[in-house]
Parts: sequence; structure tokens; C-alpha cells
Amino acid sequence: MGLEFCRFLLSNKPGAVVIATCRKPDSSHPLADLNVRHPGRLTVLQLDVNREVDVKEAAETVQTEFGKVDLIINSSAMLHPSGKGETSLKEVSAQGIISTLTTNTVGPLMMAKYFAPLLQRGSGAFGQQPPEKNKQHSGILVNMSARVGSIGDNALGGWYSYRMSKAALNMATRNLSIELSRGRSKVVCVSLHPGTVNTDLSRPYHRNVPKDKLFSTEYSVQCLMSVIDHLNVDKTGRAYAWDGSEIPW
Amino acid sequence: MGLEFCRFLLSNKPGAVVIATCRKPDSSHPLADLNVRHPGRLTVLQLDVNREVDVKEAAETVQTEFGKVDLIINSSAMLHPSGKGETSLKEVSAQGIISTLTTNTVGPLMMAKYFAPLLQRGSGAFGQQPPEKNKQHSGILVNMSARVGSIGDNALGGWYSYRMSKAALNMATRNLSIELSRGRSKVVCVSLHPGTVNTDLSRPYHRNVPKDKLFSTEYSVQCLMSVIDHLNVDKTGRAYAWDGSEIPW
Repeated sequence: MGLEFCRFLLSNKPGAVVIATCRKPDSSHPLADLNVRHPGRLTVLQLDVNREVDVKEAAETVQTEFGKVDLIINSSAMLHPSGKGETSLKEVSAQGIISTLTTNTVGPLMMAKYFAPLLQRGSGAFGQQPPEKNKQHSGILVNMSARVGSIGDNALGGWYSYRMSKAALNMATRNLSIELSRGRSKVVCVSLHPGTVNTDLSRPYHRNVPKDKLFSTEYSVQCLMSVIDHLNVDKTGRAYAWDGSEIPW
Repeated sequence: MGLEFCRFLLSNKPGAVVIATCRKPDSSHPLADLNVRHPGRLTVLQLDVNREVDVKEAAETVQTEFGKVDLIINSSAMLHPSGKGETSLKEVSAQGIISTLTTNTVGPLMMAKYFAPLLQRGSGAFGQQPPEKNKQHSGILVNMSARVGSIGDNALGGWYSYRMSKAALNMATRNLSIELSRGRSKVVCVSLHPGTVNTDLSRPYHRNVPKDKLFSTEYSVQCLMSVIDHLNVDKTGRAYAWDGSEIPW
């Protein structure tokens, strides 16, 4: 999903400079290809969201080189270290939940901690800006969440670690939206649900998904960027699906 | 809170046998006193919810000695390792969140994992049993949550670690309620909000709480036991406050 967001932004937002982060930049050939195709517009930084020091150093690099950020998309996540969500309590382990929470929940919050000052210096290039100066935002922070992270919407159970990590992430989104809408520089913070997307994360479950409900990364990112294009301070602190509909907590 | 639940049950439920768990039984004088005052009715087990093996061994001991459990109250929790909730993003650290999530969220879920089979063999001694056999429950699982764990109710922000741990715990409650209401032996699972109680956890904030809103542990436990006395399968999978009102997710 992260790669596709980079591709979309480079192709569809001609003025945009994109910063991609990944754990092993040297072995990411798709990012290297993008770099060749869009010379001078893509910066790739090494970053493992599980390591607070990595996030801090990446933010320092971005601060030095760019001084601001307009949009952050936190899209790194896992279903479970095993690659499969727990179908029952017996499969739940302390270590499995803690790993999932660390990557899916703590990681995005660390990103927010170190990049918030850069978003507060953003130029408000994404989303909709209302005419009132005091309602304009400087940046947008997107936490990629999931409908299964909705407690109220949960009728099936299972997937303990993943569901809990996304519920906690939604709380982080809400908290961030409150803290970052105080003061003059406002950052719009939302959780987004990408639909069921054809990625490694969901691969073990594809046979259960009707074909028209299994989105390509291209389609999902296109829809999500449309949702982002319509964001403003009135929409901060909420969760939205790929079609713009609001998701209950 | 846990100690007060033990005291209440020993004093007000004459037939009840109580199992208390704590990290250092040898240095818990109040539990030793209770044991003297109610001979043969209190069992104290060593258990640190941060250690899955402790939870597993405690469940094995209870299985051998009692074979069933009617009610579990997961009340162990912390505000933050520092003793104070984060007032802003700057105070958030990866290690602080992970510690809080481990104790407040993973701990109760590990309790559920190992004690669920014992609750499924419970005699349904707590809560209200409807006349229909297929709607009767065998046990009740209570996760002590908090109103500040409600995402929808969150208007103030701050307390990142604590809020996120309780939101994730609420998702665990919901998941557990679904998994444990399948089959013949039903376990009612709820999150409860105790009010603001005069304990070490809330001590740094007492001066901000109006006197009539700062509950004694005795009063809070009395209210919560009344909520528990009215639980049944129709009320499973939800969050309730000390006065029985439902709390949004």
C-alpha cells in the first residue's frame, strides 16, 4: 500500500516531492524504479517503525532537507507475526499480540510524535481548505486502520491481535486529532479503511472474498486519495472507509 | 480495587470461595488479614499478568483445586510506568506505551485465555439467569476498563498509553463475548468503568476531581457488584459504568 501511495502521488501530483520509508531501502527494487522514472522527486529513507530511534532520525533528516511535510500516510502493519489472524482464544499468545501492537499501533504513534512538528509547518497542500483562515490546516496525518478495528462493528470476533491493534490505533488517531487541532497550525488526523486489498497481509483470506470486493492496491489508493482530497478540520478525529463513509468506533 | 472485590465477596456472598492473585503474596498483609478473618475461604496465588507462564500455572492450580470459576474480575492495571498519564505527544515513548499495553491489555486477555475453560464449567452463581436454559450463562468475565478508554467519548485527549490500552481491552472484551457465547456454556464478558476511585492509580489527579465524584474503593466495588448482579447474556460484549449506564465505544 505504501509503495502504491508513492506511485500515485508521483504520477498524479506533479508538484509533489515524496519521501518513502522502508526497512531495507537497498533491496526495494520497485522504489529504485520509481526513483529512475521520477528523477529528483523521491527520497527513500531507512526506517523500521518498531525502532523509535529510526523514526527520530528520519524526522531529523526530513527536517534538515525539507523543513516541512504536508501529508503523512502510516501504512506499515501486519496481521500477526504468524501471517494469520487468531481464529480462537487458544491461538492468542502474549508475544504475538505485543509484536502486532508494537508495529501497528506504537509505530504510527511514534511517527506522529516525531513528524507532528513538520506537519505543523506544512503548507496545507492536501485536503480542502475552507475560506476561514482559522479553520485551515497545515498538514494531514492518515493512520491506515481497518473496518475490523471497529469495536461496534465487530460481529464475528477472532483476529484478536489485529483487531486490538487497530482499535488502539483509532484511539491514537482521536487523541492526535485533539492535540493537533489546538493552536494556530492544525493537523487533520484520520483513520482510513482501505477495503480488502490484494496484498500479502490479506492473501490467506482471498478465497473468502467476493471478486468485486477484493481491491487492487491501485484502486484502493485511488479511492483513499479521493477521501484525503476532501478532508478538512471538521472531519478530523474520525474513521472513514475507502468510499468516504464514516466507520463507527 | 482487586483487594476490595475480595473483601466484598467474602463479606457479602457467604457461600463464595475467593481466589486472589497478586505479584508478591508474601508481602500482602491485607490479604493475609482477610485469610485470618475468613478461614478456609480465600486462596492467594502468585501471578504477574505480564508473565503468560504465571497465568497458565495459576489456571492449572485452580483447575486442580476447584475445577471451575463463576466470576473473574481482571482489575490489574497501571496508568503509565511513570505514574502519570502523558499530557502531550512529547511525553509519549514507545517503551511506556508497550509496558502499559502489556499490563492493561495483554494481561487480561491472557487471563481470559487460560481461565475461559474454567468459566465455561462455572455454575452461573453470579448475574441474572433467565428461565430459558439456552440463555443461561456459566460464568462472567469482567475487564476493568475506564470511561477514558471510550474513543467516542474522548473530547480531552492526553493519557495516550492508558486510553489506548483500554480501547484495545474493550475490543478484547467484544471479541471474547462473541467467542464465549457460542456453544452450550456461555460466558458473559463485559468492560466496566469504576468511576474515579481513590487509589494509587488516580492519586496524582485527585485535586481535580469534585469530592462527590471521587469514590472510595468500597463504594465503587459495591456499585460494580450491583451491575454484575444484573448481567445476563443479553448484556454481554458491552461496556458499563458503575451506575449501570452503557458507555459508547
